Order: sequence, then structure tokens, then C-alpha cells
Amino acid sequence: MGVKIGILGLGTVGTGTVQLLLSSAGRHPMLKEIEILKVGVRSPEKSREVELPFGIVTSDIESIVTHPEIDIIVEVMGGIEPARELILKAIENGKHIVTANKALISRYGDEIFSAANKAGVYVMLEAAVGGGIPVVQPLKQSLSVNRINTITGIVNGTTNYILTRMQTEGSSFEDVLADAQQLGYAEADPTADVEGLDAADKISILASISFGGRINLKEVYCEGIRQVSQTDIAYAEKLGFVIKLLAIAKRNTPSSSPLSHSPLPTPYSPSLSVRVHPTLVPVNHPLASINGVFNAILVEGEPLGQVMFFGPGAGAGATASAVSSDILNLVALLKASTTSLNPLLTCAHQDYCQISPIEEQITRFYARFLTKDQPGVIGKLGTCFGKYGVSLESIVQKGFQGELAEIVVVTHDVTEGNVRKALAEIRTFDAIDSIPSLLRVL
Amino acid sequence: MGVKIGILGLGTVGTGTVQLLLSSAGRHPMLKEIEILKVGVRSPEKSREVELPFGIVTSDIESIVTHPEIDIIVEVMGGIEPARELILKAIENGKHIVTANKALISRYGDEIFSAANKAGVYVMLEAAVGGGIPVVQPLKQSLSVNRINTITGIVNGTTNYILTRMQTEGSSFEDVLADAQQLGYAEADPTADVEGLDAADKISILASISFGGRINLKEVYCEGIRQVSQTDIAYAEKLGFVIKLLAIAKRNTPSSSPLSHSPLPTPYSPSLSVRVHPTLVPVNHPLASINGVFNAILVEGEPLGQVMFFGPGAGAGATASAVSSDILNLVALLKASTTSLNPLLTCAHQDYCQISPIEEQITRFYARFLTKDQPGVIGKLGTCFGKYGVSLESIVQKGFQGELAEIVVVTHDVTEGNVRKALAEIRTFDAIDSIPSLLRVL
Repeated sequence: MGVKIGILGLGTVGTGTVQLLLSSAGRHPMLKEIEILKVGVRSPEKSREVELPFGIVTSDIESIVTHPEIDIIVEVMGGIEPARELILKAIENGKHIVTANKALISRYGDEIFSAANKAGVYVMLEAAVGGGIPVVQPLKQSLSVNRINTITGIVNGTTNYILTRMQTEGSSFEDVLADAQQLGYAEADPTADVEGLDAADKISILASISFGGRINLKEVYCEGIRQVSQTDIAYAEKLGFVIKLLAIAKRNTPSSSPLSHSPLPTPYSPSLSVRVHPTLVPVNHPLASINGVFNAILVEGEPLGQVMFFGPGAGAGATASAVSSDILNLVALLKASTTSLNPLLTCAHQDYCQISPIEEQITRFYARFLTKDQPGVIGKLGTCFGKYGVSLESIVQKGFQGELAEIVVVTHDVTEGNVRKALAEIRTFDAIDSIPSLLRVL
Repeated sequence: MGVKIGILGLGTVGTGTVQLLLSSAGRHPMLKEIEILKVGVRSPEKSREVELPFGIVTSDIESIVTHPEIDIIVEVMGGIEPARELILKAIENGKHIVTANKALISRYGDEIFSAANKAGVYVMLEAAVGGGIPVVQPLKQSLSVNRINTITGIVNGTTNYILTRMQTEGSSFEDVLADAQQLGYAEADPTADVEGLDAADKISILASISFGGRINLKEVYCEGIRQVSQTDIAYAEKLGFVIKLLAIAKRNTPSSSPLSHSPLPTPYSPSLSVRVHPTLVPVNHPLASINGVFNAILVEGEPLGQVMFFGPGAGAGATASAVSSDILNLVALLKASTTSLNPLLTCAHQDYCQISPIEEQITRFYARFLTKDQPGVIGKLGTCFGKYGVSLESIVQKGFQGELAEIVVVTHDVTEGNVRKALAEIRTFDAIDSIPSLLRVL
């Protein structure tokens, strides 16, 4: 009896996980069967929030992933290297893996899952997306029979916190970011968060699980929130929207067939649109009211309809919940069978999903124009949009910025390429001073 | 290869499930390994929405649960008998079970799970709670390491639809119910829904899974929405609340220890408060914005914090998603091991949770009084409440109903027994005409 684990890393998540595993009273009784054999850290002499018996903490991390008694390696060190190399070596040595490392999985998932399949081990990654929110396992198991059409997520707490405060306080991006950094809600180098890179990692993982194919991260369109201005937040509000950084993965030919018999031509690894960008979300949409550091993932499938998972997207406790539950699930899986793997929990897909270029995606757009106060500008805009097949939902002249008139346009669903062509032409108009904002609308 | 299933019942959920299983294109490839061997119905000659090959549909239901080739029995007939007897016989014959039958599981779970454990088979019931929303499996697996403190759910779509329309339209309960019946959102006999019985079934199942002990349904306090009046909805709104029918299961001694080492005295089958009643929910609470027929389940655990699951609580597609995913999970489990069961997915607990009487529960209360317009009534109310240890958050006299003044009181957290004693005494006051409403506050 007993499953022996080695933990790589004793930072926030590692510490939370060790604390949880050491306080098993009142939790699932099977937790008592987990033994922490080794914890690998860079500086073993550093004082820690958790006390571990002598001999467990070690800086010889390599010896952990090859340790003959260890069944499961828990990688919570973060970063690409040496995490990648250690995980691969652990897999080679027949260890099952639990990881919270979204950056690694989104970039090297291909290599890691191929190795895991070859070695016959599991790679569990619930903590990689949405912190403590169960979403990876529900997608793999509870929703497994659905044709997933769309995953739409608020998966980065930092940017959601910043946008929420910009919305409620009317402050600028720079001011809120500086404050968030002081409060510890944003990193000293906020690039990965505010540029949408972290969200892109997460949506590529979710898309891979939902659509049964691998995702090339480089093909994921990614636009951050730096350019979201207070002016646009205010306009959006007047039009009935809030601005959120959404991570979206969408099947290009949605399977809408309501429970029909006829086999659809939909492939299991379909063509997708996968992207991260600030988005105008209608105020009555379930994602519109997800505020602050919370995350939420909305899954739309057939025949399911829509379900949403909501909760804390980060934090030691929430992430430790996900990491430790993955460990406990492995313990349960190993108890039930040590020979065959559960096919819903392994990575079966080999092929890459085809991701369509951003120009081909179809969505609504919000654009803001600064124009010279000339008669007929609105007519010219409308005519030019029409020329490129862009039909308009609304076009309003609301305010002035100095001498310039401000015109805001919301389109119907159109391909992004057509919108860009229309805007390129509009930019040449004499009456147009500038086009400060182009945002997508959910 | 191939897993053979027998389906009992071909109503809405059964039809949705058969349709899903027969349209496997674009879904998880493992679905193709499922073969529907038999479908049991009462009237095989009745015309159906699904076409099945000759010989599959039969009225000899008993022969299905004993059929030697069938691995999984899918019970979607509903009702207590003959569902109970058929499931027990199927288990006796070594079949795994998938059921959507909350009424049966909440009443006879004890008998069914004991039989299943003895026979070494699974009983899967994702569809019994929350329709297509994954909540049973996430509680069993993804959240398995947490000490769950509270489950708070809107788990009955009919009553939530009625309350939402009462709130938005200002209509009376009777009018909205009649309309809901016409629209098919409420049954001709709405008792199970509007009296809270359906919600009680569901919360007892969720509590059993979350707290690792069985629940005696008879001990679950249950109060429906018939007595919720437009007056109270309006007062609640003024005070910053909406009224929802909540199903609540709560650990009486919450485990709040923030990741501490020290083993807590919390038992794994703890003392609980389990109840269903209309509740004033603060407007900024995540459950306050769950409207119409949607369901949502909020789980609060340590170290997790709060997560919420939201989606369609009923309907053929959503329920078929849950039933079929349970089937697919069984297929995956059987592929990985045909000898041992996954301990997180079996029912391990034997003991009953202790459920404290409603008098001992601690919550806030909202009470509305009709009083004769005499000076000093508010003082007398306050004094009497104080005598029983009931401290008040607010006490306001807002309006008149004819000759009578209307006073609304919101208490701080108190035991229900003390509130009842205070109200019994207040009822004897000369100045008190009546106490039309007593509602609990989240």
C-alpha cells in the first residue's frame, strides 16, 4: 500500500500542495496513502513555510525523477527548463506526471504526451487552467460525448482584475496596473498577463482537450489589453457591453445538428479559430459579471447547450486543490489498474487541429473613428463598409475630442479580413483623422 | 471489442440518449464501441422519435437486466418502482448502472449502493443532479481532496423559472405557475417541484457525495415556494436581495483551517445542516443572477475557496449529455480494468451523516409583521427578539396594508429555534395582527 510521490518545486503552489497532503484529517481517506518521498528545491537551506522530515528536501532534483520507489512526479516549479527535461526523464522512468505548468504544456505538450503514451503513463494538468476550477477533467470525462463547438474563457485573473477596476473606477490601464503590481495581483514584469500570452497558453490547452487535436501555439492570435482605453470602456457601457479579455476556441463549422441521426461530416480534429483579445461582452452574458481575479470558462456543446465553470483562477489553496486532486485521482487509477490506462484520461490525439488565420474569423466588431467635423462622413463610412460586405448594426456619433468628432460603429458578423480591408480604405479618407480602436464583439 | 448496453425507458431522456449514441460522428471515437442491445419500454408498438433496428425495442424489461451479454444498464424510466427492483436485479447480475433517477437514489441509495459494492459494479448518476452540468463527477474526482464546507444550489429549474418571472414581471405565484404549466416548464401536478421535494432529492445526493456519508431524506428540511409573495419579493429587492429556492448542505463545524498542519477533529462524515427553502440572496452573490430554468451549484471547500457550476438543469439534450458521458466513462473504466473498481467512483461510505434539526441551524432571517399602528411597536419587537438572543441587522417600517402598518426585520445569524420562540411570543402581542412571512437570508 501507499503511493510515493516526488515534488519538484516548493514555491507557492508546491507549499500549498505539501500543506494539503500533510493535513489529511477530514479529507478523503485515500489521501493518507500518499507519501511524499522527496521534494526537490534549488536552495534546500532556505527556510520554508512547511516543515518536512530530514532527508526529504533535496537539491538533487535529477535523483527524484529517476528514484525507483517514486510513482508520481508533481512538477510545480514552473518555467520551461529544467521542467521540460525533468518531466521527460520522469516519463522515461515510468513515472506518472502531475503538472500545473501551462507554459510548458502549451509549447511542448506534443513531445510530452508522445513520450507519456509511449511509456504508458498519465500526464494530469487540472491546475494548468483555471486554478482550482475543475475544467480539464470535466471536459475529458463529464462532457466527453459532446461535440464541443466553443470554449470561451476568462482565464487570466490579472487582466480581469485590471479591466474590472478600469470599468468600476474609471481609471486608466497604467494606473490600475501600477496599483495591481503593488497589491501583488500583477507581476513586476506583467508581459505574460497583459499581452494575453498566459491566456493563449491556457486556451490552447483547453482547445486541445475539447477538440481532440493538438494546437500549434504560434497560430493562436493574441492581443493584450494595453490598448484598452477608458474611452472605449465608457462607449461599450453605453452600448450595453463590458470589455473582457476573452480566450476563445471555436469550431469553424459548428455542429448544430439537434441530436440528428445523420452522421455529420465534422471531423474529430476540426478546423478551429483560436484567439485571445479584449472583447465587448453583452452585459447580460454570463461572462460579463465575472469580475476581479475570478476566472470562468463557458463551454458550448451539442447536445449539452452551455455550461459555465466559475471560481478562483489562482492562489495557493485553489491551485493546491487541483494539483492534489490530480494526485488523488492517479492513486485511484493505480488502485483500479496498474496495467491499462483509462483512455479518457490519456492523450489519444496525434494530429494538429487546423487553425484558420485571424483574417478568416467571423465575429462582430466595434470601431471608433476620430473624424473632421464634415457633413457626410457617416455616409462615406457606411458606403465603404458596404463595399467590403461589412453590414453595420449601429453607427453613432456620440462626442467630440477637441476639434474632432467621434464616431462609433458596431458591425454584424463579418470576416475580419473584410473589416481590415474596409478600414485600410477608410484610413485614406480625407475626413478621417484616425481609428484609435478596433475591438471584437462577442 | 464493444460494450453492450440495455436502456430502460424511451421517454425524453431515453430518446435523447439513443439519438446521441446513434450519432457518433464528430464525437469521441470511443462512442462507436457502444452497442445498444436492448431498449425496454412499456408499449413497444408506440411510434417513437428514434428508429431502432427490429428486435431491439422490447416490453420484456426483466429480460434486459438479466441479459448475459449486457454490460451496462441505463435506467431512464424514472419513478420508484419498477426502477428500483430492476436496478437491484441488474446489479445482482453484475451489470454496471447509469441512472438519472434522483428520487430513487435519494430514497434507496443505501440499498442500491450496498448491493453495487457487494457485486463490484459502478452506479453512475451524473444526470440525477443539474441535468447536463458536470457536478457529481467533479465532486468525486476533481475536488476530492477538499474539505467541503457548503454546497448551495439552485437545482430546480421550474421553481427558479417561476421566481424569476415573479421577480421581473411582478406577477403572483399562481399566475406564473399556470403560465409555466401551459408552456411546459411546470408539470400538471407541480407538487414535487414547487414544494421543494425535487430539490431535496438532489441536495441529499450532493451532500452524500460531498461529505462522504449517507443522508436520510426524511431529515432534510423542505419548504417550497407557494408562500413566496409579491410583497416579499418587492421588500427583498429594496433591501438588496432576490428570493431563490436554495438547496443547502452545510457542515455544522466548518473547516476553515487555512492549510494548517494540525489534524482537525472534523470527522469525514460530519454533522450537517441540509435544507431546502426560499432564501433571500444578496444581489451581488453569484447565485443571485442565475435566472430562468438554469441551475447552478456553488461549492465551498478548503483549501479550494468557492467554485460554481452553471448550466441547463434539464432538457433532453443536456440530460442525454450527462447519461451518455456516464456510459462513456464506464466504457473507459472497463477498458482500463475489469477487475478492480476506481475507489473515487464507487460509493465507499456506509455511515449516515448526522443531520441537525432545523431548530439548531444558524442563519439570518427576514420576517414581515402586520401591526396595529400603535406607538412603541418597534421597541417591543426589538426587546422581545433581544430576550431570545436574536440580534437585529435592520428593522424598518416601510408601508401600510389597509389599516395595518408593515414592519420588516432582518436578523443577524441566529439559531432558528430562538427565532421561533421569539416569534411565538411576539404573536401574542396585542399590537401584532399577523406575521405573514418568515424567510431565511443567505
